[in-house]
Amino acid sequence: MTTTPDHEAAGRRSHAKGEARRRQILESAIELFAERGVDAASLRTIGEAIGVSHTALRHYFASRDDLLIEVYRAHEASTSESLADVDGDPVLAMAETAERNRSIPGLVQLYTTLTTDALQEQHPQTQDFVRGRFRALRSSIAAKIAAAQEAGELAADFPPEDVAALIIAASDGLQVQWLLDPEAIDVGRILSLLGRLMPERP
Amino acid sequence: MTTTPDHEAAGRRSHAKGEARRRQILESAIELFAERGVDAASLRTIGEAIGVSHTALRHYFASRDDLLIEVYRAHEASTSESLADVDGDPVLAMAETAERNRSIPGLVQLYTTLTTDALQEQHPQTQDFVRGRFRALRSSIAAKIAAAQEAGELAADFPPEDVAALIIAASDGLQVQWLLDPEAIDVGRILSLLGRLMPERP
Repeated sequence: MTTTPDHEAAGRRSHAKGEARRRQILESAIELFAERGVDAASLRTIGEAIGVSHTALRHYFASRDDLLIEVYRAHEASTSESLADVDGDPVLAMAETAERNRSIPGLVQLYTTLTTDALQEQHPQTQDFVRGRFRALRSSIAAKIAAAQEAGELAADFPPEDVAALIIAASDGLQVQWLLDPEAIDVGRILSLLGRLMPERP
Repeated sequence: MTTTPDHEAAGRRSHAKGEARRRQILESAIELFAERGVDAASLRTIGEAIGVSHTALRHYFASRDDLLIEVYRAHEASTSESLADVDGDPVLAMAETAERNRSIPGLVQLYTTLTTDALQEQHPQTQDFVRGRFRALRSSIAAKIAAAQEAGELAADFPPEDVAALIIAASDGLQVQWLLDPEAIDVGRILSLLGRLMPERP
């Protein structure tokens, strides 16, 4: 079965409108979480806070978990372009991201909430998302490290995958300590210590 | 006003009985969390799972947060004795703890739940507990590092507090990645990379 051209155009317009509305909701939710955090957020309370009916929200997002994941994905996509600038040095790149997150503690909260949910059986979708994100991030950082090792720019006596996991872990853990104790923790300075693990070849 | 010796003895017995019951509840909760995790645990659902009435639970613990904190504290106290054995090398000590946690993913979940709650305004008691725990842990690890630096056993060109924060952050973050991807992450091996930050003095 095919649709007539008129139906197609109408479908495209309606699809585009739906996409725009979905995007708008995501942006409101990013603002909401940035300002107020994500604690005990249900689809209903999120809808109330951003002035979207529960029914409308359910139209765009299947569940609370689905919305949280999409909000985080949208936030990450909007910052990843600038991240691509810090090419080459993975420690510097993570330090940059950590630095940028400083201004939006609510989004660090969103991230830790997703991570904590991911460890619980009751959130299979979040578990898939977070596991996949860690894998993709480890493999992208490891590839940069391996390339630098092959080019003779970095010492080659350690597994790139291990250092990649370590950089991500340190960055995640330090952001939590920093949120709880901003005076005591300088995320960028501490992360830069990891650079010592990979001395440039003489 | 003084109580009679008889009253005192009765009071002591009743206090001892109360302590024993509280201890029993904590142990049941540790088992519960170790087996099933802590997701969406309310005082009521915890009580139902360990067969303690809500009223009895409220008698010993003021709130869900209070119970979670006490469960974690009890678990940590029971493992800290063996931790004291790994004197001297803080990286080794964290690796040991991480290794021990492997057998009890539910307690890593409890830890990440406490940490996530601590970042939310709605959990002031948890925030105080987690902030205090991080401070105590950083300062105890930093003291060991500083002592080793003074004794000439470790390179002295980095701030002990920064390395302490880094070790804790890496250990926390790696345990999360490991829970999601046990095949890919070897917590002990990756943490041991941090030992390179502190080469022994020649």
